[in-house]
Amino acid sequence: MGFSFANDVATPLLDQVFVPDDLKSMDQAALCRLAQELRGETLRVVSETGGHLGSSLGVIELTVAIHASFSAPHDTIIWDVSHQCYPHKILTGRRDRMRSLRKKDGLSGFTRRGESPFDPFGAAHSSTSISAGLGFATARDLKGEDGHVVCIIGDGAMSAGMAFEAMNNAGASGRPLIVILNDNDMSISASTGALNRHLSDVRRKAGTNVGNVFENFGFDYRGPVDGHDLDVLVPLLAELRDEKDGPILLHVITRKGAGYAPAEAAEDKYHGVNPFDVTTGKQNKAEAKALSYTRVFADALIAEAETDDRIVAITAAMAAGTGVDRFGAAFPDRTFDVGIAEQHAVTFAAGLAASGMKPFCAIYSTFLQRAYDQIVHDVALQQLPVRFAIDRAGLVGADGPTHAGAFDILYLANLPGFTVMAASDEAELVHMVATAAAHDHGPIAFRYPRGEGTGVPLPIRGEVLPIGRGRIIEQGGQIALLSFGTRLADCLKARRLLALEGISVTVADARFAKPLDTALLAELVDNHSMLVTIEEGATGGFGALVLHHLANCGMLDGRCAVRTLTLPDTFIAQASPEDMYEEAKLTARHIAAAARNGLTVARPNADIRRSARAGQQELPTRLHRAEDR
Amino acid sequence: MGFSFANDVATPLLDQVFVPDDLKSMDQAALCRLAQELRGETLRVVSETGGHLGSSLGVIELTVAIHASFSAPHDTIIWDVSHQCYPHKILTGRRDRMRSLRKKDGLSGFTRRGESPFDPFGAAHSSTSISAGLGFATARDLKGEDGHVVCIIGDGAMSAGMAFEAMNNAGASGRPLIVILNDNDMSISASTGALNRHLSDVRRKAGTNVGNVFENFGFDYRGPVDGHDLDVLVPLLAELRDEKDGPILLHVITRKGAGYAPAEAAEDKYHGVNPFDVTTGKQNKAEAKALSYTRVFADALIAEAETDDRIVAITAAMAAGTGVDRFGAAFPDRTFDVGIAEQHAVTFAAGLAASGMKPFCAIYSTFLQRAYDQIVHDVALQQLPVRFAIDRAGLVGADGPTHAGAFDILYLANLPGFTVMAASDEAELVHMVATAAAHDHGPIAFRYPRGEGTGVPLPIRGEVLPIGRGRIIEQGGQIALLSFGTRLADCLKARRLLALEGISVTVADARFAKPLDTALLAELVDNHSMLVTIEEGATGGFGALVLHHLANCGMLDGRCAVRTLTLPDTFIAQASPEDMYEEAKLTARHIAAAARNGLTVARPNADIRRSARAGQQELPTRLHRAEDR
Repeated sequence: MGFSFANDVATPLLDQVFVPDDLKSMDQAALCRLAQELRGETLRVVSETGGHLGSSLGVIELTVAIHASFSAPHDTIIWDVSHQCYPHKILTGRRDRMRSLRKKDGLSGFTRRGESPFDPFGAAHSSTSISAGLGFATARDLKGEDGHVVCIIGDGAMSAGMAFEAMNNAGASGRPLIVILNDNDMSISASTGALNRHLSDVRRKAGTNVGNVFENFGFDYRGPVDGHDLDVLVPLLAELRDEKDGPILLHVITRKGAGYAPAEAAEDKYHGVNPFDVTTGKQNKAEAKALSYTRVFADALIAEAETDDRIVAITAAMAAGTGVDRFGAAFPDRTFDVGIAEQHAVTFAAGLAASGMKPFCAIYSTFLQRAYDQIVHDVALQQLPVRFAIDRAGLVGADGPTHAGAFDILYLANLPGFTVMAASDEAELVHMVATAAAHDHGPIAFRYPRGEGTGVPLPIRGEVLPIGRGRIIEQGGQIALLSFGTRLADCLKARRLLALEGISVTVADARFAKPLDTALLAELVDNHSMLVTIEEGATGGFGALVLHHLANCGMLDGRCAVRTLTLPDTFIAQASPEDMYEEAKLTARHIAAAARNGLTVARPNADIRRSARAGQQELPTRLHRAEDR
Repeated sequence: MGFSFANDVATPLLDQVFVPDDLKSMDQAALCRLAQELRGETLRVVSETGGHLGSSLGVIELTVAIHASFSAPHDTIIWDVSHQCYPHKILTGRRDRMRSLRKKDGLSGFTRRGESPFDPFGAAHSSTSISAGLGFATARDLKGEDGHVVCIIGDGAMSAGMAFEAMNNAGASGRPLIVILNDNDMSISASTGALNRHLSDVRRKAGTNVGNVFENFGFDYRGPVDGHDLDVLVPLLAELRDEKDGPILLHVITRKGAGYAPAEAAEDKYHGVNPFDVTTGKQNKAEAKALSYTRVFADALIAEAETDDRIVAITAAMAAGTGVDRFGAAFPDRTFDVGIAEQHAVTFAAGLAASGMKPFCAIYSTFLQRAYDQIVHDVALQQLPVRFAIDRAGLVGADGPTHAGAFDILYLANLPGFTVMAASDEAELVHMVATAAAHDHGPIAFRYPRGEGTGVPLPIRGEVLPIGRGRIIEQGGQIALLSFGTRLADCLKARRLLALEGISVTVADARFAKPLDTALLAELVDNHSMLVTIEEGATGGFGALVLHHLANCGMLDGRCAVRTLTLPDTFIAQASPEDMYEEAKLTARHIAAAARNGLTVARPNADIRRSARAGQQELPTRLHRAEDR
C-alpha cells in the first residue's frame, strides 16, 4: 500500500480519536486515512508486544466502519473470539495503554468487561458472540430500550455448534440483530468443513441470488462485500443501522494480515506473533533450550503410529498448536482436523474407538471443556478407549485466564473408569503416549503444559507405565511432597531449600491422579509427618482424590498432616509464567513454606519435632497407628 | 387402524423373527403385517413397563424397513437419543426380555453397547449419532472394510450444535454415510427455531427441488417421504444401500405416537408414559403424596417474578420437565425455550445477565454438562449473575446412568466465584430460588432431585438465605453428619439408628458447597470425634471441598476423623431409586454404618471412646488442639 509503518510516522487523525464518537465528524476520505494510521499503529504496537496480529490487520477497515456507523457503548459491539480486537481497543480510549497488551496488569489480548465499557462481553473461546448478542438484544427489547447489537464472527468460528444453536434461535426470534460474518477463509489454520465449501460457493455466485444457509436460518442475508473497502462498508452499515426488522447477516470478505506484506505472505498470516521487526517482518524468537511438549508429543505419537496402524489423531482447528500438523505430514489419512468442533471431535473419536481404532484427541485443556458431556456420556459411560492428549494444561502466561487449563484434572479424574496422567517432564510424556497407546480398556488422558520441556534426554520409544503407579524420586524422612505433573521440578527445588533447614524431604511423582497409587500413599503417610500434594489445577482434582482416599481409609487420624497445593480459587490474570506461579503460590519457595508451616503447626513443639525425626512411633498422634490399618 | 392391541392377539410373523435377517425372507405384504404386529407388541410391552412410547410408535415402519434393507450388525445402525429403540430391540433378539425394560438388571430404555451387538453405540443424550456414525464410517474406510452406517436422528435433535458440527464434517468427508432425518416436528415438546421453520418450508415445497440446508452441507438430499409407508421406504432404502458415493440425507416424515389414537391425540404424543390401559390409554399414575421439586421450583420462580420483572426463565427443550412451561404460562414474554441447545442457553443467559436481567437457566444436571465451557468461560470468568436451577440432580431411577446428575457439584463448586447450593427439601428449594433471585454478585446454582418433595409445609415466599451459611438440624455429641442436599432425611434416620446404640449424633444441613460454612465446620470438628459428609454426587465436590479446607487449616490432625460419602466411582445402572441408594451406599443404614465404623476405627479403645464422650480434651490425638487454631 506504499505506506510507512515506521515508528516516527505521524498519526494526525488517530491522535484526535479518544472515543469512537470522534469518528462521526470525519468524512469518507478522512476515515480512509484514519484506517491507514490505525493499521500502522496496530503493527507498531504488536511489533513491540507480540500478540494476535493477522486477525487484527484483517479487520482494520471493518473496525473503522463499525465505529463510524454505530454508537458504542450505547450500541453493543461484540467481537467473537476477540483476538481481532486490537484496533477496536485503540479506537476506544485504550491507545495509550496498548504497549501493556498481554502483560501483567496490562490490557488483555481479548475484550474484557472489566477493562472498558466498550467491551460489553468478553471472549477468547470461539463462537459465543451470537448467543451473547441475542441475550443483549432480548434484554433491550424486554426493557423497551433501543440500541443496536452487532456481532462480528469469523467463518472459522461458524463451524462450532454453539454458533449454529445461536443462529437457529436468533433467526427464529425475529429480533433486530446484526451479525457480521468476517469471512477470511481461515480459522487459525485453513478452514475446513462443508460450511466452508458452501461459503466458497456463496462467494463465487455473488450477485446470482442463490439461496444460502443463512437465509435458511431466517437471517436477511447481505453481501458478500469487500471488507477492506470503506466506500462500500460505511454506507452499507449506515443502511443496516436504519433497518429494524429482524436479524441480518452481513457477509464481509477480508484478508487475514491485510496491508502488511510479511503477514499476507505467511501461511498462518501472522496469527500470533512474537515481537518483530516491522521493516522485515522477522520475529524475535528466543532460542529454544529444549523441545516443546507439543513437539515431543507429536514425535512420540508418530513413533507409536509407525508400528500401530490403528492409531489416528484428531484436532479441533489446532493442528499446529497441538502438533497434529506434524503427525498429519507423516500420516495424512489418519489425521482429522474437524474444525472448531470439540464436541464432534470427542464423539467422532468415540465412534472410532468403538470400531477398534486408537484415536488420540489432542485438544487444549481449556477447549476440551466444550466436550465435557461427550466425554461423560459417549466415552466414559461406554468405557471406550479414547486417548486424550491435553496440551496447555495449567497456567499459560500471556493468553491469561480464558486459556488456562485449570479444570481438566477435576472434570476427568472424578469420572468412573477414567485413567488420568500428568507428565512431570517431556521424557515422561513420551512414556505416557506409549501407555495411552497400549491402554485399550477404557478412556485415558494425559496432560502436559504449554512451552518448552526441561531438556531431559528423550527415550527413542516410550515405555508402557504400570497403570496407577507413582514413583519416588528422592527419599527423605519428615515431609513427603507428592507432585502430579510438571511442578515436580519445583518440588525438588523445595526439597533443597528445606534441606538447608535440616528438614528431610521425600519427593514423589504421582504420575496418575486416577487410579491413585494407594500403596505409595500408605507408605508416604506412614513414614512422614507431613504430606503435601502439588498440582497445577483447581481444587477437586488430584489432591481431593488423595484426601477422599485417606479419609475413607481412616488414615487422616493425625499420623501425618496433609496439605493440598492447587491453583487458587481465583482466575489468575495474564502475566509471565513466573509471575503467575508466584500468584498461584506454586513455586519452590511456596511449596517449601507450605510444608514447613504445616509441619510447624502439626508439631508445634520443637522437641516433638526432633523426636519425630529420631523415631516417629513416639509421637502421641501416632498412638493408634497399628489399629488403624 | 382397526387393529387390536389386546394381549391375546396372535403375532405369527413377529414370532418368526429372532434376528433381523429373518426379515429378509418376507415379502412386502408380510413386512406390512409384521409392522402392525410390532406396533401391537411395542404397545403391550410399554403398557406394562411404562417408558418412552410416542417415539417408538413413530418409527415402527422405519425400523422394519431399516432391518429389512440393511444387515445389522454388519451394517451399523445408530439411533440418536435412542428412546425410540424399543421396536429395534424387539426385532434384534430381545423380545423375550422387553418386560424387564428400565428395571433393575433388565433391558435399558436406550441402546447400550453391553446389551447387544445390534447396539453399536449407546445413547440417551441427544444429537450424538452423526458424530459417532462418521467415526464408524471412517474406521471402516481406514480398515478397508465395507458395511453401511445408518444414523437415525430426529428433527429436534438436529437443533443441537453437535449435530451441526457432525454434518459439517460428514458433508465434507465425502464418506458414504446415511443419515435418516426422522422429522416429526417435535422434540419432547414442539420443536422451535429457524431450522424447524426451514424444515416446514422443505416439507411444503416437496418436489420443487428447492435448495436446503442439508445440500448446503454437502449431503445428497432425498425426500421428504412418508415414514409410515413401507411401500415407499423399503425400495428407497434398498436404493440407498446400493449407492456408495458419499453422505446421503433421507428426510422421512413421521407422526409421533402413530397408530395409537390416545397417543396421537395427546399433546406430548405419549413421549414418556407410566404403565397404562391399552384400550383406553389411561395411565396408572400413583397418587402424588407431595408436590414435585420441579413444580415447587416453578411456583417459587413465578412468585419471585411477580415482583421482579428482570427475572426470565430459559429451558433447553425441557419446558415441561423443568416446570418452565408453567412459568411460561404466567410470563410468556420472559420465557425462552431455545431447543436442544444448552451451550446457547447458557451464553444467551450470560448476555441477558450482562444487560442487567436475572436469567434462570433451568437445565437437568446431566444436560448442563453440555454447557460446561460456557459456564466456565462466559459466566464464571465474567462473574455474571446467571442463576442455574439444576433439576434431576443425583440418581434418577429408571432412566439410568445416562441421566444421573452425578457431576454438577464438582464441575461447578470448583469454579472461582460460583455459589453452589443444594436443597434438602422443597421448602429449602423455595428459599434457594429467592436467594438466587437476590444474588446479583456472580453466578449461583441450586440443585434438587427428581421426583416428589417430602411434603413439608411450603412458605408463601422464600427467604433470602445468608450466603455460605449452613444450619444445625439436630445437636448431638460424638458424630456430626453434614449433609449437602436431600440425603438429609436419611441422615436424620441414621441419627435415630445410632441413638439406639447410645451414640449421640449432630445433623447439619450444609446448604452451600461453595462458599463453605467454615465456622460451622470448625464447630463440628472441634466438638465431635467424627465428621461424615454426605452428598448425592461424585467425588471432587462438596466432601472434597470440606477436606481441602480442613487439610489446609491444619484441622485434619486427628482431633476429628472425617469420612466422605459420595456416589460411588461407578455408573449406577437403572433400578428403583431405593435400589440405587442401596447400591450407592447412601441410605440411612449406610450412613450410620460409615459413621459407626469410622468412629470405631478412629477410637479403637472403648475406654477412649467413653472418655471422648465425657470430655474430648483428654484424647491424646487432641493434644495440640489449642495451638492448631
